[in-house]
Amino acid sequence: MDPIDKREKTVAQVKVVFTPSGRRGSFPVNTPLLHAARVLGVDIDSVCGGRGLCGRCQIICAEGSFPKHQIDSESSHLSPVCATEIKYGERKTALANGRRLSCHTLLLDDVVIDVPAESQVHRQIVRKDAEHRDIHLDPATRLYYVQVDDADMHVPKGDVQRLIDALEGQWQLPNLSCDNRLLKTLQPVLTKGKRAITVAVYNSQQIIALWPGFRDKAYGVAVDVGSTTIAAHLCDLSSGEVLASASLMNPQIRFGEDLMSRVSYVMMHPEGADEMTLVIREALNSLFAEVAEAIDGTVEDILEITLVANPIMHHILLGISPVELGGAPFALATDGAVEVPAAELELKINPGGRIYILPCIAGHVGADTAGMILSEEPQEQDQMTLLVDVGTNAEIVLGNRQRLLACSSPTGPAFEGAQISCGQRAATGAIERVRINPETLEPRFKVIGSDLWSDEEGFSAAIESHGVTGICGSGIIEVVAEMYLAGIVTVDGIVDGELVNRTDRMVQNDRTWCYVLHSPVSDEAQILVTQNDIRQIQLAKAALYAGVKLLMDHIGTDRVERIRLAGAFGSHINVQHAMVLGLIPDCVLDEVSSAGNAAGTGARIALLNRQSRDAIETLVKNIEKVETALEPKFQDYFVDAMAFPNKTDPFPNLFSLVTRPAVKQLVDNAGGRKRRRR
Amino acid sequence: MDPIDKREKTVAQVKVVFTPSGRRGSFPVNTPLLHAARVLGVDIDSVCGGRGLCGRCQIICAEGSFPKHQIDSESSHLSPVCATEIKYGERKTALANGRRLSCHTLLLDDVVIDVPAESQVHRQIVRKDAEHRDIHLDPATRLYYVQVDDADMHVPKGDVQRLIDALEGQWQLPNLSCDNRLLKTLQPVLTKGKRAITVAVYNSQQIIALWPGFRDKAYGVAVDVGSTTIAAHLCDLSSGEVLASASLMNPQIRFGEDLMSRVSYVMMHPEGADEMTLVIREALNSLFAEVAEAIDGTVEDILEITLVANPIMHHILLGISPVELGGAPFALATDGAVEVPAAELELKINPGGRIYILPCIAGHVGADTAGMILSEEPQEQDQMTLLVDVGTNAEIVLGNRQRLLACSSPTGPAFEGAQISCGQRAATGAIERVRINPETLEPRFKVIGSDLWSDEEGFSAAIESHGVTGICGSGIIEVVAEMYLAGIVTVDGIVDGELVNRTDRMVQNDRTWCYVLHSPVSDEAQILVTQNDIRQIQLAKAALYAGVKLLMDHIGTDRVERIRLAGAFGSHINVQHAMVLGLIPDCVLDEVSSAGNAAGTGARIALLNRQSRDAIETLVKNIEKVETALEPKFQDYFVDAMAFPNKTDPFPNLFSLVTRPAVKQLVDNAGGRKRRRR
Repeated sequence: MDPIDKREKTVAQVKVVFTPSGRRGSFPVNTPLLHAARVLGVDIDSVCGGRGLCGRCQIICAEGSFPKHQIDSESSHLSPVCATEIKYGERKTALANGRRLSCHTLLLDDVVIDVPAESQVHRQIVRKDAEHRDIHLDPATRLYYVQVDDADMHVPKGDVQRLIDALEGQWQLPNLSCDNRLLKTLQPVLTKGKRAITVAVYNSQQIIALWPGFRDKAYGVAVDVGSTTIAAHLCDLSSGEVLASASLMNPQIRFGEDLMSRVSYVMMHPEGADEMTLVIREALNSLFAEVAEAIDGTVEDILEITLVANPIMHHILLGISPVELGGAPFALATDGAVEVPAAELELKINPGGRIYILPCIAGHVGADTAGMILSEEPQEQDQMTLLVDVGTNAEIVLGNRQRLLACSSPTGPAFEGAQISCGQRAATGAIERVRINPETLEPRFKVIGSDLWSDEEGFSAAIESHGVTGICGSGIIEVVAEMYLAGIVTVDGIVDGELVNRTDRMVQNDRTWCYVLHSPVSDEAQILVTQNDIRQIQLAKAALYAGVKLLMDHIGTDRVERIRLAGAFGSHINVQHAMVLGLIPDCVLDEVSSAGNAAGTGARIALLNRQSRDAIETLVKNIEKVETALEPKFQDYFVDAMAFPNKTDPFPNLFSLVTRPAVKQLVDNAGGRKRRRR
Repeated sequence: MDPIDKREKTVAQVKVVFTPSGRRGSFPVNTPLLHAARVLGVDIDSVCGGRGLCGRCQIICAEGSFPKHQIDSESSHLSPVCATEIKYGERKTALANGRRLSCHTLLLDDVVIDVPAESQVHRQIVRKDAEHRDIHLDPATRLYYVQVDDADMHVPKGDVQRLIDALEGQWQLPNLSCDNRLLKTLQPVLTKGKRAITVAVYNSQQIIALWPGFRDKAYGVAVDVGSTTIAAHLCDLSSGEVLASASLMNPQIRFGEDLMSRVSYVMMHPEGADEMTLVIREALNSLFAEVAEAIDGTVEDILEITLVANPIMHHILLGISPVELGGAPFALATDGAVEVPAAELELKINPGGRIYILPCIAGHVGADTAGMILSEEPQEQDQMTLLVDVGTNAEIVLGNRQRLLACSSPTGPAFEGAQISCGQRAATGAIERVRINPETLEPRFKVIGSDLWSDEEGFSAAIESHGVTGICGSGIIEVVAEMYLAGIVTVDGIVDGELVNRTDRMVQNDRTWCYVLHSPVSDEAQILVTQNDIRQIQLAKAALYAGVKLLMDHIGTDRVERIRLAGAFGSHINVQHAMVLGLIPDCVLDEVSSAGNAAGTGARIALLNRQSRDAIETLVKNIEKVETALEPKFQDYFVDAMAFPNKTDPFPNLFSLVTRPAVKQLVDNAGGRKRRRR
């Protein structure tokens, strides 16, 4: 008889069931729980490899009778709490509520063992928005504590080979390589750690960092490089939690407010590209320092960065001149995902740290759109879904499970408050909400910094410190929509000067009329909405709508079933007002919602789940790209979309809720006055 | 009937035979010769891909009747010389002796086509030494001229993807990647070259450099980083030819003459490691600049570097502190081959250039030994072959087709002239050859800088400008061997002071005797060989011999059949004298020869043939490493090897040619005099 069989026959076997996985098996008495879990393929985390250092492998013994499993489970069926567990509690927090370290707990009798979510490697990270699936935690960078053999003259291999062998032997990580940059520090780290070290492994392929002894801090930062704002979120790679966030204005604004003016700057100052690259990298480095400091760490604790950006920011960040993106054929230098050592981009995180930049889709549809898709998953929807990220260029994605199309449309900066006479960024003092009484034509509004409407008591006092300084993007949408609904602006976008007879809020400016939204008591300037402001909004929203229509044409649908508005602008605008303007197509209003900072969330998903990287890279290749500039119908759609909400499209869902204003036709006469025709 | 078949039936077919490959086939009239060669798998080079630019695809039409092939071949069976060929001749040299560009020559009738060696990609590079196989040219870095599609808004992929697609389509290079560092320059280069560019591809895997238009200059440099000298050879990667060489003293000498003193320096000045790394890299950069200038090029023309070095130089070059190599267990940080971008080591060649460093074998057996093995191929020998590279550490390889063993032995710097009273480097004025008349005990010698023996007429005049300044390594070997053969030194290495009665060349120094090799006429110092000099040579040669004996033990042989001596020292010493001393084991003298700079040649092979890299990496893993410090028998072998040539080994081959001196036993008495016993 085989001696192994013999031994197994003589040692008592006990049963264990792990929940929630339901995996079960029998093991000899005194088998460590972590070992049993490994054998059964139960997902329990561990960085220290069972040395009682990391505390990741905590479990709870279920108490009671489980007839389904035929087990009476109680904590005395496990070995008593041992010295290592007590020591762990002294070093970290004591193990609460009967939790045990599964690596130091032996099976004595039948038990049911609960593995709490935080002890699972591949746990789910719950996203707040009910629309989204949770993120499945599986980061590209993981830590492993490993004991490396002593150097041995009889086996004269290199210490890096000893480390690689140890990782294969102790962690089943085959065929690892080691970043050459670590060769310099390997031996001192081995010496300092007495041959016990912690390594960071990237993508189960390469060792990218080393520390003496045990360590369990591993952080990554997800970054959204917008034209206006750069936002960074530092995440704990082992829990997925966002521990710190920071943002700053894109310092490139000094080279041009919008993207195209920055490209023009480079065209005129070729050395400007390098300058812009420098300032954007410096800005990122200051953000990294800020989020690291917020968790009392250093930038060396950051092992990985994922980035989304529009194509121009993407190229500048990589040190590529954006001039080719400034004109047709809008040739990207690369559209693939970019994976580089941080050092290559002069980004100051851990010296072995890695950067992953999501793929671009086309010359104007960037990694930010890829991020939005990763976050929103339109390819998983049955409904015909429209995603819009409004910026200087609107990035538009339309589709569902069957097909996905993308385009961009040059909306210009009007939605960001630029080119609007009283426009300003969303900041304290800016008007963000507007209602106009269609009878009296009197407005009321809210400004950022106060929750009161302008006609409520205490408003003046509440805004006294900052005043009313201008109109931000969402305010512009509302005031123009309200002006249209109140009959102050016609369906064609003409400000009706004849209303001067009904209200003193109409003032003439050269040959056109303005609407006075706010007249301050003191000597501040009036807040006006001019004819030109209306035109700018018409041009912007018509471009966006024409882009959406082209995608609808290509996919062969005449309606969208669901709309998600991404970005800061998309989060703040009132969707009904946006639809009144015809900024978005008609849709059941309940199906229109904000997607928040979807691009940034996409960067975070790419940070926390490495499979999402392959998924988005593959998906992006299959997205059908539509180039608005090449489509003959774009111009027709654009002209129709100049009207509110649209010259030809009926908007039945909208007008089932909102009364369509009477159609007025005003004709410009030689004297600049407008005549009403019913 | 299939339309293809129909067409083939109606177009006349002609026969073509390519020599020397003998490949043959039939093709339709007007098939370009290069195309026919490609179809038949005939090896014809091309960088420009058949555009008549590179001139690499030249062939010669054989004239005459070839009954074996049933072909009457003549040049009129090919299309007439065309405008492109004439233009090529105007730009480069005219096509001589009836040569044609096969890409622009069409088959009209049956022909025999000779492909000259220089038109083959995988040509052989003939090595001067008859012992060696030729190098099969197959460099890791190759150039490709490629036409890249214009950017196209309908196909909005990145330009790098267009380049990769073009290389796959035009050159059948699948799955290429592009070095991220090139993203910055790709679009300007495409524009400048009007989308026609030349790229350098590394290992058929990655694009590492780009130039607008056509280019056919690709260079690499093979470097041997010795403790004393650094030598660099610039090679044309397309012909394998060495175009320029340069060398300089290792500037680390200022940190210590020999390796161990440099390691000690680092132990005492930890910042010294970085300093040494800096100076070695600076030295390499100055060599690269020098060899590039020698061919009227720049360092940007250098695309690849291969390097050999002993383990300590290897580590310092990589920026790794060598302190672990300074003592047992002599732990290498890495023993694998190292492949890195040049920029990572701050080596200034083409910004995308690559470095390949051969693998190390053990803590004292370095990449230089791997280079020696690559050059000498002991694993291809039937004879039991001994390779020795003598330096401060001797690196020793023993074996044949069946097995290969390696070790190192600490010979110390005596063979380099250090620790020898009148020792000096091999430079003008150094004694390099010595003969002693056993009757008169009078010496004659040669010094570097003159071809005359010291007893020949005109010697004094010939050396007048520099004098006789010392004894170099090969001179030391000869003078000690000659002293032994002449009976001046006993078998145990004692200088026989009793000879003072026979010659005035014996002088006393404290309690021991010296031999006066040269007494200058003027006030220069005498050139003496002291008792201590003999001891130093005994210690060095005994260490070397003991190492060899250990390998012989391990492999189970009592004789070697072939000995190759590598390195500068190995090239200059007289093998018979070396054997008289017992520096090398007994062997048929005709089978003992110099291997030249075998390590450097190994670096050149690795540069010119990429398969050799895999081969040496695999081979090195299978070499059995013997650690002399761990072998109990080392001490016994060492003691026996202190005698000339050896206390126990008989040296039959040697003494069939050389008369063994009578054995004298001298006993040291209290007065310091020696008494002869017969």
